[in-house]
Amino acid sequence: MTSTGNPGGTPGRTPGGTSIDLNADLGEGFGRWHLTDDEQLLSVVTSANVACGFHAGDAATMRRVCDLAAERGVRIGAQVSYRDLAGFGRRAMDVPSGELAAEVAYQIGALEVFARAAGARVAYVKPHGALYNRVVHDEEQAGAVVAGVRLADATLPVLGLPGSRFLAVAAKAGLPVVTEAFADRAYTDEGTLVPRGREGAVITRADDVVERSLGLARSGVVTSHSGRDIAVRARSLCLHGDTPGAVDLARRVRARLEEAGVRVEAFG
Amino acid sequence: MTSTGNPGGTPGRTPGGTSIDLNADLGEGFGRWHLTDDEQLLSVVTSANVACGFHAGDAATMRRVCDLAAERGVRIGAQVSYRDLAGFGRRAMDVPSGELAAEVAYQIGALEVFARAAGARVAYVKPHGALYNRVVHDEEQAGAVVAGVRLADATLPVLGLPGSRFLAVAAKAGLPVVTEAFADRAYTDEGTLVPRGREGAVITRADDVVERSLGLARSGVVTSHSGRDIAVRARSLCLHGDTPGAVDLARRVRARLEEAGVRVEAFG
Amino acid sequence: MTSTGNPGGTPGRTPGGTSIDLNADLGEGFGRWHLTDDEQLLSVVTSANVACGFHAGDAATMRRVCDLAAERGVRIGAQVSYRDLAGFGRRAMDVPSGELAAEVAYQIGALEVFARAAGARVAYVKPHGALYNRVVHDEEQAGAVVAGVRLADATLPVLGLPGSRFLAVAAKAGLPVVTEAFADRAYTDEGTLVPRGREGAVITRADDVVERSLGLARSGVVTSHSGRDIAVRARSLCLHGDTPGAVDLARRVRARLEEAGVRVEAFG
Amino acid sequence: MTSTGNPGGTPGRTPGGTSIDLNADLGEGFGRWHLTDDEQLLSVVTSANVACGFHAGDAATMRRVCDLAAERGVRIGAQVSYRDLAGFGRRAMDVPSGELAAEVAYQIGALEVFARAAGARVAYVKPHGALYNRVVHDEEQAGAVVAGVRLADATLPVLGLPGSRFLAVAAKAGLPVVTEAFADRAYTDEGTLVPRGREGAVITRADDVVERSLGLARSGVVTSHSGRDIAVRARSLCLHGDTPGAVDLARRVRARLEEAGVRVEAFG
Repeated sequence: MTSTGNPGGTPGRTPGGTSIDLNADLGEGFGRWHLTDDEQLLSVVTSANVACGFHAGDAATMRRVCDLAAERGVRIGAQVSYRDLAGFGRRAMDVPSGELAAEVAYQIGALEVFARAAGARVAYVKPHGALYNRVVHDEEQAGAVVAGVRLADATLPVLGLPGSRFLAVAAKAGLPVVTEAFADRAYTDEGTLVPRGREGAVITRADDVVERSLGLARSGVVTSHSGRDIAVRARSLCLHGDTPGAVDLARRVRARLEEAGVRVEAFG
Repeated sequence: MTSTGNPGGTPGRTPGGTSIDLNADLGEGFGRWHLTDDEQLLSVVTSANVACGFHAGDAATMRRVCDLAAERGVRIGAQVSYRDLAGFGRRAMDVPSGELAAEVAYQIGALEVFARAAGARVAYVKPHGALYNRVVHDEEQAGAVVAGVRLADATLPVLGLPGSRFLAVAAKAGLPVVTEAFADRAYTDEGTLVPRGREGAVITRADDVVERSLGLARSGVVTSHSGRDIAVRARSLCLHGDTPGAVDLARRVRARLEEAGVRVEAFG
Repeated sequence: MTSTGNPGGTPGRTPGGTSIDLNADLGEGFGRWHLTDDEQLLSVVTSANVACGFHAGDAATMRRVCDLAAERGVRIGAQVSYRDLAGFGRRAMDVPSGELAAEVAYQIGALEVFARAAGARVAYVKPHGALYNRVVHDEEQAGAVVAGVRLADATLPVLGLPGSRFLAVAAKAGLPVVTEAFADRAYTDEGTLVPRGREGAVITRADDVVERSLGLARSGVVTSHSGRDIAVRARSLCLHGDTPGAVDLARRVRARLEEAGVRVEAFG
Repeated sequence: MTSTGNPGGTPGRTPGGTSIDLNADLGEGFGRWHLTDDEQLLSVVTSANVACGFHAGDAATMRRVCDLAAERGVRIGAQVSYRDLAGFGRRAMDVPSGELAAEVAYQIGALEVFARAAGARVAYVKPHGALYNRVVHDEEQAGAVVAGVRLADATLPVLGLPGSRFLAVAAKAGLPVVTEAFADRAYTDEGTLVPRGREGAVITRADDVVERSLGLARSGVVTSHSGRDIAVRARSLCLHGDTPGAVDLARRVRARLEEAGVRVEAFG
C-alpha cells in the first residue's frame, strides 16, 4: 500500500489495516533541562524515538528512557540529529556526506549500548527536526543518513514521510522503510504536509486530532486542507509530547483507536 | 605477576615474558584540527586507544581510524574521557557516578559502531587524561567507569596503571584487567610514577626510552628515580604520539624489542 | 559590618541596615529549554544574575533578559560558570588559572554587549554552582576568578559568601565585594552554611523563609541550626527561581520586607 | 572607488591607492589544538581576524592573540561564526535572524574584553567560513549579522567581499564597510571569485600570488580567469595562515608591496 504522495511503493500498514504503531520523541532533555514527559508517554506509545545527544539527550537520560521503554515493551528507535544543542537540531546544516553519515552512525551506536543494557536493541532510526525535513527533498543528505544507518546495521528500519527522498533512497539501499503520518497536521490534496506557518497547518482541536488518528489508522484516509478525502497510508502515527496537554491527547488517541478495534502495536 | 605498587595481584604479562603490547592514543583531532599521526602510528602499535568524541575524536575521524586499524590488524580500544573538548579531558571533574557511568558507556557504544563496520570490535577500554589519573586513587569514579564499561559489555578488558584503584575495582567486578607501563616516565622505588612537574619525571633522551622499553618488556624491571632496579610488570607499553619525533621514537622502540626477540603483539 | 564567618571585614550592608538587595539566577535556559521564570522574577528582584552561556544562557536569552532587566531597572550581573552545559555548571572542575581567568572574562564580555545594548551595564559578577562553592575555599581558583573579573573591569563588584576566600582575595585585589545570605538555607553557629545533604540544610517551610529573610535584612541575625541567634550580615539575599512556587515565595519575601519598612534596592 | 562586482559604491581604498591593509585569520586553535601560527603572522599583517570561540578560539587563546596584536600595533577584528566547533564554521546553517544577531553580538563582546584588557579595542568585524559565504547572497542572514554588529557597536566597520549583500546591507544600516580581495583566488570577468572546486580557482604558485597582491594593492587591477584585466578594488588583502608555507608567502607579499612603495597599514 502506498500514500498518494509516494507512488514508488513505500510499504504501508499490514494487510487488514487494523493495526497501527504510535511513535513519539522522548528523552529530549539535556542535563538539568527537561522537556518531554518520558514516564507518561511511555505508557501510551509503542515506539520511542530516543534523542541521542546531538540535539538533546544526555547519556544518563538515554539510559533511563531505554530502561523504562524496555520494561514496558516499547520499541526503541534512534532519533538522530544534526549536532546542534543550541538550536535543538532545528537549524538545517550543510554537513558534508561523509561527516553526516559518521555522525548518524555515532548516535545509533551510543544509543545501542543503552538499549542492549536494558535487554532490548535499537529497532529503527528516525531523523529529527531540520534533518527530518531536509531529507524529504535533499537526495545527498538522504543518502548520507542512509549510509550512516547502514554503517550501524544494514537491516535497521527507518521511519519517515511517505514520498520522501529519504524513504526512497533507504528502500533502494535495502533498508526496511516505515511510513508515518501526523494526525495534528493538515495535508494537501497531494498527500503532502501543509507547511508550518500556513493558516491551518496545525490541527489544534483535540477532538479533530483524535478522529483524524482513527481515520488514518483504520482506513488510511484523512480529510485534506481543501476538504477532499485523500489516502495517507502509514504504519505509524507520530504523537507530540512537548506541549501542554500532549500526554492527555496521546492517551485519548490511543483509547479511541483501541475502542474502535484498531490494534495499537509496534510495526514490523 | 604483579607490580610492586600492586600487591593485590593484577594480572601481568603472559608467562614467559617474551611478548608485549604497544598502545598509543589515536584519533585525537577534532574536525579541522589534527594532533596524532594516526596513519604512521598504526604501523607501529598493536593497540589503538581511539578517542570517542568527549575530549577529541569527531565521528568521521573515529570511523577512519577504525578502518585503518582493522585493515592493519591493530586492536581497537575505547579511550573514554570526561566531556571536555575545551580542556582536552585534562581537567578533573566531579561527575556524579550515574552520569559518569552513562557517559563512559555512551562513548564505548559510539566507537563500537565504527569498529564493527570495519569488521572488528571494541576490544578494551582505557580512560584518558584527567579521568585516567583520577581513577588511580578515586574509588567512586573508578567504580563509575567500571559500571559504564559493564553497561556496554561485562567482558571488556580495561587498561590501566598497576596498583590503581581502577584495576582493583574492575577486577573485583569481574572485568579482565591489563596493566601498562610508561617507558618515558620515571618511577619511584615503590613502582609508582614520579608526578609530572617534578625534576626528571619525564625521560626525554630517546636512547633511554628505548632501553627502558626493552627492560620493561623483557624482564619487567626498570631503574627507579633513585637508581634502584624495581619490578614494574605490565602487559602493555604506552607510547606517546602527540610530540615531534614521537613516531620515530615509537618505531625505534618496536624495532629494538623485536631485535631482542620480544614478540610485539596485542594482549589477551 | 561583618559576618561571624568573615572576621576579615568584608563590607556588609549600608549603615542603618534598612535596605537589602534581592538577587536571583536568571536566563538559565538554553535554546529550546527553559528553566527560570525570568519575566516574573524580574518583577521581584533588584539584581539579576544572568547566565552567560557556559552552564546555561544562549545569546538570544541573554539579550532578552538584559532588555527586560534594563526596562525594569533591575541591576544586571554576570553569573559566570565552568564550561559545562551537560552538568549545568554543577561539577567542580580543575581548570588551570590562566584558562579559568580567561573564561570568566569571556563570559563577562559577552554579557556586557547585551547589557550595553539595553542601555545598562554589567554591574557585578557572581560565580555559579560548583564554581561558587569551589571559590569559598580554593585560593587558586578564587584568584583566577578575581583575575578574570579584573581583566574585564577592575572596578566591578563581586557577589559571594561572607568569609569566603573569594571575597577575601577580591577585596585584597581592590574589587568591591558584596556579601549575600540565603534565607532558605540553615546556618551553623559559626555562620557558615550547613552543607546540602545534611538533615535540615534546606529550609522548606515558606513562612520560615519569609521570616528569616526579614531577620537577615533588618538585623543581620538568623537562628542557627542549633537554635542560637547568630550574625550573618549581607547586603543581598539570594532567592531561588528554579523550583515550583519559587516566584510566589520570592514575592512574599519582598512584600514582607517592604511591609516591615525595609527598602528593597540594589546594593552600592 | 568600487569593484566591478559592486556597482552600489562600497568604499574602496584611500585616494592615491598607495596603501593597503593585510588581514589574516588568527587564533584558530581550540584548547589543545593549534592551527594558525599567530606569533609569526602578527609580524606580517596589519589586521588580525581573531576567532571568538564559535568555530575556534578558546578564551585563553583569544587573550594571548589580543595581547600580542596590541603589543605590535596590529588591529583586532572579531571573526564571527556559526556555532559549529565540529565543522570549524564551514557548514552553512539556517539560523533564525534573532538568534544569529545575538550570537554575533555575543562573540564581539567576548573578544572586546580581551582587546580592551590589552589596551586596544575591537576595530572591525569579519564573518568566518560558511557565514562569510552565505552573507554574500543571503539578504536575511546578512541583515542578522549587521544587526548583531550594531547591537555591539553601531559604528563598527565590517570587512567583506565587494558586491556582497553583506556590505550593501551594512552600508545601508550606516556601518562603515571595508572591501577585501584575495591574491590567491581566481576572479571571473565580472570581478567575483571563481568558486572553489573549479579548475584554477586557487592560485598556488607563490610568485603569482605575490604579483597579484601588488596589482591589487597598487592599481586595483588583476588578471581574470579568462585573461582580461579587471578592476577589483579593495582596502584590504586577505592572507591565509593555515597552510604550510603560509607565513613565508605572507612575508614575501608584504616585502614586495613595501619594496614597490605601497604603504602596508591598517584601513580607516
